[in-house]
Amino acid sequence: MQLFRKELEKMKPYVPGKPIEEVKKEYNIETIEKLASNENPLGPSKKAIERIKAELDYINIYPDATAAKLRQEIALSHDVKMENIVLGNGGEQILTMIAQAFINEGDEAIMADVTFGLYKTSVTHMGGVPVIVKLKDHKHDFEGFINKINDKTKLIYVCNPNNPVGNIMTKDEIDYLVSNINDDIVLVLDEAYYQYAIKNPNYPQSLELLKKRPNTIILRTFSKVAGIAGVRVGYAISNEEICTQMAKVKGVFNINKLAQAAALGALEDKEHIENTVELNYKSMGIMKDYFENNNINYIDSNANFIFVDVNTDSKVLFEELMKKGIIIRPGFLWGMTNWIRVSTGTIDQTNKFVKALDEVLNNK
Amino acid sequence: MQLFRKELEKMKPYVPGKPIEEVKKEYNIETIEKLASNENPLGPSKKAIERIKAELDYINIYPDATAAKLRQEIALSHDVKMENIVLGNGGEQILTMIAQAFINEGDEAIMADVTFGLYKTSVTHMGGVPVIVKLKDHKHDFEGFINKINDKTKLIYVCNPNNPVGNIMTKDEIDYLVSNINDDIVLVLDEAYYQYAIKNPNYPQSLELLKKRPNTIILRTFSKVAGIAGVRVGYAISNEEICTQMAKVKGVFNINKLAQAAALGALEDKEHIENTVELNYKSMGIMKDYFENNNINYIDSNANFIFVDVNTDSKVLFEELMKKGIIIRPGFLWGMTNWIRVSTGTIDQTNKFVKALDEVLNNK
Repeated sequence: MQLFRKELEKMKPYVPGKPIEEVKKEYNIETIEKLASNENPLGPSKKAIERIKAELDYINIYPDATAAKLRQEIALSHDVKMENIVLGNGGEQILTMIAQAFINEGDEAIMADVTFGLYKTSVTHMGGVPVIVKLKDHKHDFEGFINKINDKTKLIYVCNPNNPVGNIMTKDEIDYLVSNINDDIVLVLDEAYYQYAIKNPNYPQSLELLKKRPNTIILRTFSKVAGIAGVRVGYAISNEEICTQMAKVKGVFNINKLAQAAALGALEDKEHIENTVELNYKSMGIMKDYFENNNINYIDSNANFIFVDVNTDSKVLFEELMKKGIIIRPGFLWGMTNWIRVSTGTIDQTNKFVKALDEVLNNK
Repeated sequence: MQLFRKELEKMKPYVPGKPIEEVKKEYNIETIEKLASNENPLGPSKKAIERIKAELDYINIYPDATAAKLRQEIALSHDVKMENIVLGNGGEQILTMIAQAFINEGDEAIMADVTFGLYKTSVTHMGGVPVIVKLKDHKHDFEGFINKINDKTKLIYVCNPNNPVGNIMTKDEIDYLVSNINDDIVLVLDEAYYQYAIKNPNYPQSLELLKKRPNTIILRTFSKVAGIAGVRVGYAISNEEICTQMAKVKGVFNINKLAQAAALGALEDKEHIENTVELNYKSMGIMKDYFENNNINYIDSNANFIFVDVNTDSKVLFEELMKKGIIIRPGFLWGMTNWIRVSTGTIDQTNKFVKALDEVLNNK
């Protein structure tokens, strides 16, 4: 008998990047700017830190399994009930919970390529079939999605803004998709970059959509604009039945006590969120100015990263930038050889990136 | 088409206990001693707290996905390689990862009843069949286990000490089991209460067993003696291939940055662990003295809780104790109506429990 679950054969082990300390030694550089993981360059909210400190003496006690207070506050902020909220150990766990709550062997899930990689992995793990529809003009090809629907279709994933591309599917486009799919298909709207995207007036109001179409799951996270990626809190907003079923597979104590505290702090720190979004578009402006002045092709972004056609092998560029103390995400990881994804940094970090990129591209 | 994964029908939603603040209001009591979750009554290690504080300014950054430093230190403490260690978001996640890494539909997993409930839930979720063998004289019936083995048997779970019973399977008993099962069956030894149990000279040396029998998974946790249940760190020790495969289903960033820090601190705080174990057996002694002086039947425990035959409906007793400010775990939850599980507390907490129990049992 085969030892492991058969689906594991299709899943690759995670290959970690080189630790920053090693990179520093290898290239003899003092500081490294990591613009690779779309983290908040302003750091965590001070209110999150204060909330954590108040809990430190009690970490011998299990967390609240239902995370009632945090779910209440999140629900309040979205004008829904706490029964409409389910929490994950990062948005990442929300995605694995979705596959674990819906997928049986042979069930199909439609998703784009390129998009966030975990949709495919999580569906595959549960024995489902990821049905891949290539991007068209760098956007989700909803016509292609609709053509792939059949009796086995359980889930449709839309990453909005799409990671790593950064563009949005507009309200009209989402409406078109929804009007062409059955109500029993679960639509997953991954809005990890929501607070950046709502600056765009064409961004859909997914909470309104949820009211009309209950089999919709909206994913949000505290890892990006809220600045607490290190403590892992993401959540889904959906109908009560979906949340109840997803909670069966969450794990009893999946949200760490300090993570619950941090998220409560981050949630009330609206100023930190505003400052972060403001900085994001300033840094983005610096990069876009450089790209435009140098005829470099890029996708206009509604997130805290930008996808750029560097017109050269991204693997080589990645190495060259690293030697100059900049870490970005090379596009070959997604099969987009000549592209890179760069997170917005502080103004200083962003300027440092632009300077380094200019030097590498022009052999300065 | 059915909306949810079919196995979810067999899984019940988690029903949380009453929040302590509500209990206080309802019964008009000021302090509540929770002796229900086997937490560390001495609180968290100070070293764990210090390590967390040093990370607070960086929680905007994702955790180390491989948790390399923590895995190295854990490996060192067990004289194995870091490749033999895989971490979970609590021991709880290690158990779900085991089912997710081994079980396909129809695969069987043998386990006791009563024992820790998550073995059954996690195997069921993955489409596996939990094969239940009742305890015999309150102990794992290994003869019964061996009789249940067939071509579909993938996993055997042994909770040692067994939760909620508290007794151990001895080295001789485990050796007997192992000599009667094929090497390709994965033996899961759940040793969440390891540091308490090793005081018993008959407790098996599972790391030695792992060397001889690679398809063995040893589970340990930082939630009990290490006193950081609130931040969620558990781990498995096994052969490299099993750890690699389990890591595929762990989630990329499953261990929170502050949890990694806390576990490093707890690991080096040997004094805290020694004090905790010492207190445990003092508190246990107080309870055992009371039980013996009052002819109350109990199972001798090798963990930080004790399983007691209160010879009355545990549901009623639970309520009566709660009115007196003591929360224990009533046995009806495991189908053992007349039994309760009580965690050891501080000396004061333990005395308070004994007094309250005495009052309730004797209608004082």
